[in-house]
Amino acid sequence: MSDEPLHGEEAIIQEYLAPLAAGYPGALGLKDDCATMTPTPGCDLVVKTDPVASGIHFFADDPPADIGWKALAVNVSDLAAKGAVPRAYLMALSFPEPPTRSWMAAFGAGLGEAQAAFGMHLIGGDTDRRPGPITVSITVFGEVPTGRMVRRAAARAGDILFVSGSLGEAALGLGLVRDGGLGRTLGLSEADVQAAVRRYRRPQPRLAVRAALLAHARAAMDLSDGLAKDLGRMCRASGCGARIQIDRVPRGAAAKAAIAFSPRYWNDVLAAGDDYEVLVSVAPDQADAFEAAANAAGGSASEPFPTTRIGEMTGSAEIRFVDGSGSPISLAKSGWDHF
Amino acid sequence: MSDEPLHGEEAIIQEYLAPLAAGYPGALGLKDDCATMTPTPGCDLVVKTDPVASGIHFFADDPPADIGWKALAVNVSDLAAKGAVPRAYLMALSFPEPPTRSWMAAFGAGLGEAQAAFGMHLIGGDTDRRPGPITVSITVFGEVPTGRMVRRAAARAGDILFVSGSLGEAALGLGLVRDGGLGRTLGLSEADVQAAVRRYRRPQPRLAVRAALLAHARAAMDLSDGLAKDLGRMCRASGCGARIQIDRVPRGAAAKAAIAFSPRYWNDVLAAGDDYEVLVSVAPDQADAFEAAANAAGGSASEPFPTTRIGEMTGSAEIRFVDGSGSPISLAKSGWDHF
Repeated sequence: MSDEPLHGEEAIIQEYLAPLAAGYPGALGLKDDCATMTPTPGCDLVVKTDPVASGIHFFADDPPADIGWKALAVNVSDLAAKGAVPRAYLMALSFPEPPTRSWMAAFGAGLGEAQAAFGMHLIGGDTDRRPGPITVSITVFGEVPTGRMVRRAAARAGDILFVSGSLGEAALGLGLVRDGGLGRTLGLSEADVQAAVRRYRRPQPRLAVRAALLAHARAAMDLSDGLAKDLGRMCRASGCGARIQIDRVPRGAAAKAAIAFSPRYWNDVLAAGDDYEVLVSVAPDQADAFEAAANAAGGSASEPFPTTRIGEMTGSAEIRFVDGSGSPISLAKSGWDHF
Repeated sequence: MSDEPLHGEEAIIQEYLAPLAAGYPGALGLKDDCATMTPTPGCDLVVKTDPVASGIHFFADDPPADIGWKALAVNVSDLAAKGAVPRAYLMALSFPEPPTRSWMAAFGAGLGEAQAAFGMHLIGGDTDRRPGPITVSITVFGEVPTGRMVRRAAARAGDILFVSGSLGEAALGLGLVRDGGLGRTLGLSEADVQAAVRRYRRPQPRLAVRAALLAHARAAMDLSDGLAKDLGRMCRASGCGARIQIDRVPRGAAAKAAIAFSPRYWNDVLAAGDDYEVLVSVAPDQADAFEAAANAAGGSASEPFPTTRIGEMTGSAEIRFVDGSGSPISLAKSGWDHF
């Protein structure tokens, strides 16, 4: 490993990326123009592409291993929310300047950790040089039994709403990276700071809830642009409204400390991006079974997480956030939009 | 249509992209986080991603309909060379500034023309805003009968080499776009100029040769980075060398005029990118059958094209370009590399 810049697409591909394709025959060692995939008979393929770019989704000077992890994790998070098993991915990389060998080695190591954790292989892609941010464009392939992908648009009034893990930690992690004094201001321990920064840099797709979703959920989606905005999408798609009890929304240590410091940090919990938790709408008669299955699976995950009831879908056209006494609260902003 | 900038990812997606998904049930109207695809039983899926960016693969002020066409065509060209039938694609769009309504409408129209010509649908994607070039990252899905994808690495010494269509026109088209006086310098008619510019902006994936490839080819790949470089890749992957008779390499009107003006334009024919023709290696006993099948299919394509013998694979480790008298010629550059 060195800081020598890497010249030549084929050097990047064969030295640092081909090892990520080892063991998947259809990848052809990344030596062909295309890859083949043969979905399991009786399964639909579930596909998704969500590129990440420096300055938007990560910082150019973030640890390259974390950039690799996050680029894959944000895509796999969608597969998890759809009940799909990850199988493979394509990756197109763009650099404004040739990467160094040490950068590529660390980036490849982070991707390797992620693909091993998620059970998938790199099968193809592209590498080019262009001005602008470093961009990692990943397309993921997963599988569900035919016709069983968990939809966004299938929620109904009366359904119980659940969310996995906790919300707001990633937004606080970003704040802590940007402002070195914020941890002290909020009275956070070093361990809490590190945990929140890790939530920002190493999101954990909630693959453990997959079986519970397939068995019991009516609708689900992952939370990438904030609960308020993504719940709005589920409500519009399903023709419902929703009512969320904010005191039930699960918060990690950093979010709790931040809200104790100032209630404006509720926005990080309810309306900030990068949580990569799963929002689930469950018919009332399935709610107990879903909750038990999701918590059993989440409890035995390598990084255990709960799944929590936070409200319900309603027949109105609006989304209401209410406090412990049932009084409506309003948000300063409603989530992340790129435009 | 207007020059009003478009704000909001959902406006871009629902107004301009959702129509491209109409008729494909697994696209879910682009209203879910993921799409589903169900490959035809007995088929492998063939997948590929090749992003294009302004300033590299097209100009930001190119007609937006041509940008849309080319972004899809360069990916479908790979499917054609692998013997695959196009089925569907994902597209991630990045803009440094919100596009105008008129830009999006024209871009969507060009994509729509292309997907209709290639027989496929948009099934999902992503839209974001970031600094740098306009980027169109497309992932294509095609199908071949199980185990039948035409490989790059399967050529053997003694195989006959063929190429579809003609080489060098796209590189000259780019030159003609950049230098308004070049057409006059080379003595080209306005029709020849327009044809060459069209080759640069609207490449035609050679889907017509698909059946001939599956029936008769040993190896194939599309030519995106120039004959010299891409043939080098096929030779290295297959453990062969090659001998190309340059007077047999098919040239269009612009390339012929350019070479008559100066032999240095041979580089545009032999070593420039963006041809999107198919390079095919065929066992000697299949060569006549391949040639007949490819020419019958190419001759009845909507834009007819020939398929031409240009040389053979050899047992040496080198690639030789020879002129009409068999004397070796050398190239000033060996093809496009991003790094």
